Amino acid sequence: MAHDSGGYKGVGAKLLSKHDVSVGDSVTVSTEDGEMFGVLMPRYESASEDYIVIKLTSGYNTGIHTGKIKSMTKLPKRELPSVANPHEFAENKNLPKVALISTGGTIASKIDYRTGGVHSALSASELYQSVPELASHASIDPEVLLSEYSENLKPEHWTMIAEKISEKVNFAKYRGIVVSHGTDTMHYTAAALSFALQGLPIPVVLVGAQRSSDRPSSDAALNLLGATVFAAKAEYAGVFVAMHAGTSDDMIACHVATRVRKNHTSRRDAFESIDIGPVALVRNNSIEMQKSEITLAKRSGRNFVAKPKFDDRVVLLKYHPGFDPMMITHAAKTHRAIILEGTGLGHVSKECFPALKEAVGAGVMVCMTSQCIWGRVRMTVYNTGRDLLDIGVVPLSDMISETATVKAMWTLANSNDAKKSMQENLANEISASIPL
Amino acid sequence: MAHDSGGYKGVGAKLLSKHDVSVGDSVTVSTEDGEMFGVLMPRYESASEDYIVIKLTSGYNTGIHTGKIKSMTKLPKRELPSVANPHEFAENKNLPKVALISTGGTIASKIDYRTGGVHSALSASELYQSVPELASHASIDPEVLLSEYSENLKPEHWTMIAEKISEKVNFAKYRGIVVSHGTDTMHYTAAALSFALQGLPIPVVLVGAQRSSDRPSSDAALNLLGATVFAAKAEYAGVFVAMHAGTSDDMIACHVATRVRKNHTSRRDAFESIDIGPVALVRNNSIEMQKSEITLAKRSGRNFVAKPKFDDRVVLLKYHPGFDPMMITHAAKTHRAIILEGTGLGHVSKECFPALKEAVGAGVMVCMTSQCIWGRVRMTVYNTGRDLLDIGVVPLSDMISETATVKAMWTLANSNDAKKSMQENLANEISASIPL
Repeated sequence: MAHDSGGYKGVGAKLLSKHDVSVGDSVTVSTEDGEMFGVLMPRYESASEDYIVIKLTSGYNTGIHTGKIKSMTKLPKRELPSVANPHEFAENKNLPKVALISTGGTIASKIDYRTGGVHSALSASELYQSVPELASHASIDPEVLLSEYSENLKPEHWTMIAEKISEKVNFAKYRGIVVSHGTDTMHYTAAALSFALQGLPIPVVLVGAQRSSDRPSSDAALNLLGATVFAAKAEYAGVFVAMHAGTSDDMIACHVATRVRKNHTSRRDAFESIDIGPVALVRNNSIEMQKSEITLAKRSGRNFVAKPKFDDRVVLLKYHPGFDPMMITHAAKTHRAIILEGTGLGHVSKECFPALKEAVGAGVMVCMTSQCIWGRVRMTVYNTGRDLLDIGVVPLSDMISETATVKAMWTLANSNDAKKSMQENLANEISASIPL
Repeated sequence: MAHDSGGYKGVGAKLLSKHDVSVGDSVTVSTEDGEMFGVLMPRYESASEDYIVIKLTSGYNTGIHTGKIKSMTKLPKRELPSVANPHEFAENKNLPKVALISTGGTIASKIDYRTGGVHSALSASELYQSVPELASHASIDPEVLLSEYSENLKPEHWTMIAEKISEKVNFAKYRGIVVSHGTDTMHYTAAALSFALQGLPIPVVLVGAQRSSDRPSSDAALNLLGATVFAAKAEYAGVFVAMHAGTSDDMIACHVATRVRKNHTSRRDAFESIDIGPVALVRNNSIEMQKSEITLAKRSGRNFVAKPKFDDRVVLLKYHPGFDPMMITHAAKTHRAIILEGTGLGHVSKECFPALKEAVGAGVMVCMTSQCIWGRVRMTVYNTGRDLLDIGVVPLSDMISETATVKAMWTLANSNDAKKSMQENLANEISASIPL
């Protein structure tokens, strides 16, 4: 193999050449401060020539000054386990059949040695090979639909995913469907599918990974296993999100898809149900249903109807002190709905009232959620809330703003009375309020 | 007292007149379903004539059908405790002197019997009378600066509050200063004061209430007491937020002002420190400092400098799937900085890149925070993040988006190199990142 200098120059390049270490090689580096193990990364363009960069097993990159390096040892390449026939597991006719639709993200990613970063790469069938335990629980039928970082997914992709699921529900006998997805916007897609796939007869479980599968702390395998077990064995139907619960490595939480949020940038248990608990835990490959105020639908031959269209002329605006009401005016020109993320019980400053009146007058649907995230919007308590109700702002109770944004895109495309639909509970996105 | 019909008509009005009950009276109502106790509210304009509305002690209003009412008993008015001389407590020369600056909000509100809602009303001196326990811990010097719902407060109000505090620090010998504030935007104001008041020699403690003082579950008294104890007795200086900790009624948490967020619309323990714990608890009027990664400044004659100016040409934009990049283009025209609330580790879709390039090219400072709320932005892990860094987007580590928005307003008015200042830790808003 040719020596890959990885952009290193001067002292760094000499040191690497001396030890025959190329970018992508696993190395042990002894320094004055101790020994480090990792994979040699290419040089950052802006970095000093005196440093080399290795990716530690923690997943983080570290720069090491060449002057501090006492020795460097190249380690033998790890071989990937070989799989004789990637489809052999799937042929077991006695296991429940589960479809695995891959859309991209970290769960389907491997390391990019050129950059030290992670990019979408693995196909669903490769994933299937890399988590052989799946074979004990389901006969998996994998399909790659998209290969995209989830921050790039748009409402038109929700339509594609909903149509693909609809096709699988209507024309094949799956016990459940797993959708692998980047975590950044997984909760938005999950909410979108909840509205688009009405009367689902089986569970559809979205799953992602916070850390890529080449990292020792990766959650990819356990998450996928948990999602598959729930899809194959749960007695309930509907859309769910399955991800790590807590910091332990043995428990997956299943969340109602309209009530879940990514609440941490990097933790494996980043996804949390809001205002309710997760509806189920999966531990040791068995499902433990949790007490919940949500009534889940049972598996059935319900009247399944796919309504996969979305109107993306919806914008979420988060209020803050100093917020310029002109942002409302601009938004109203090109959007059919504005979801406000107000303060507290659902407020924005009185300076916004004229712009909101104008927007409502022009036929734009304006709805209120709270940036507090937890708790219910209640706009009858203070003058500000009552004034906003008078203007025609639609209060959305305890619907989280992300779900509200998605729901508005869906109602605008599917309902004759969007304001009314926004206030009705369609997919567990609103809890019954405290009775008066 | 004249009978206040409160807008009731027909059967309802007759029933009220029969029992000599006016709006604002405390009543016990016996119905087929049981007995209820509360305060008679005025009739909702849209309500049926057959209902009367009472506010229960839970604080919620309930409508009762007149046909179900078996009897109604008016209760004697509760007398407010009288205070001989509202300033007598303040004259105790042996107690630490604490200034109480009132700006409005629920902590300073009483019920509006006309509407069933709550409006700002009490002055700081009235507050002082209503929590006589304060007299054991501090000699309070109250002043009403503003009387405003906090959702209406703007950067110019932060300047007023900062100048008032600065005046009190410079020209009087207070042990500490308490600022009562509406909870909706209290964390924004707290962050603003953290940047504006550099080298504070004493603690400045913001405090609010989630439930007004006429409700049995009000947190106004305990919060004010906790804030005052911390202001009078803590060994530390700087800006803090003091609010209920947990659901019990005996503990107040003190949060670092740049690291706190209102995370629930209605709970009394709505305020939470993000990514760190509260720095202190106040229980039984004594301060329990908590282990913290934050190093607090001690009380001292530090070089106190007030820099109370803010530039409000800053907007916070929260990304979501389907987000129209034109919102960035519009914002860039009239703002000097855009704080993005991206997904996950700090991402927005690639469709936003051209608008962001244009904004940065036009001299607009664009910074990245995460809508996950918890955790750190890390933009070197995925291609999307690296592309955004290349465009010139400034990563803000673990600074929460609300604090970032406020800090941008402050740096634009006070720093020669706003981008550099945004990435420097000025007031505990950024934690040292995991060492490389």
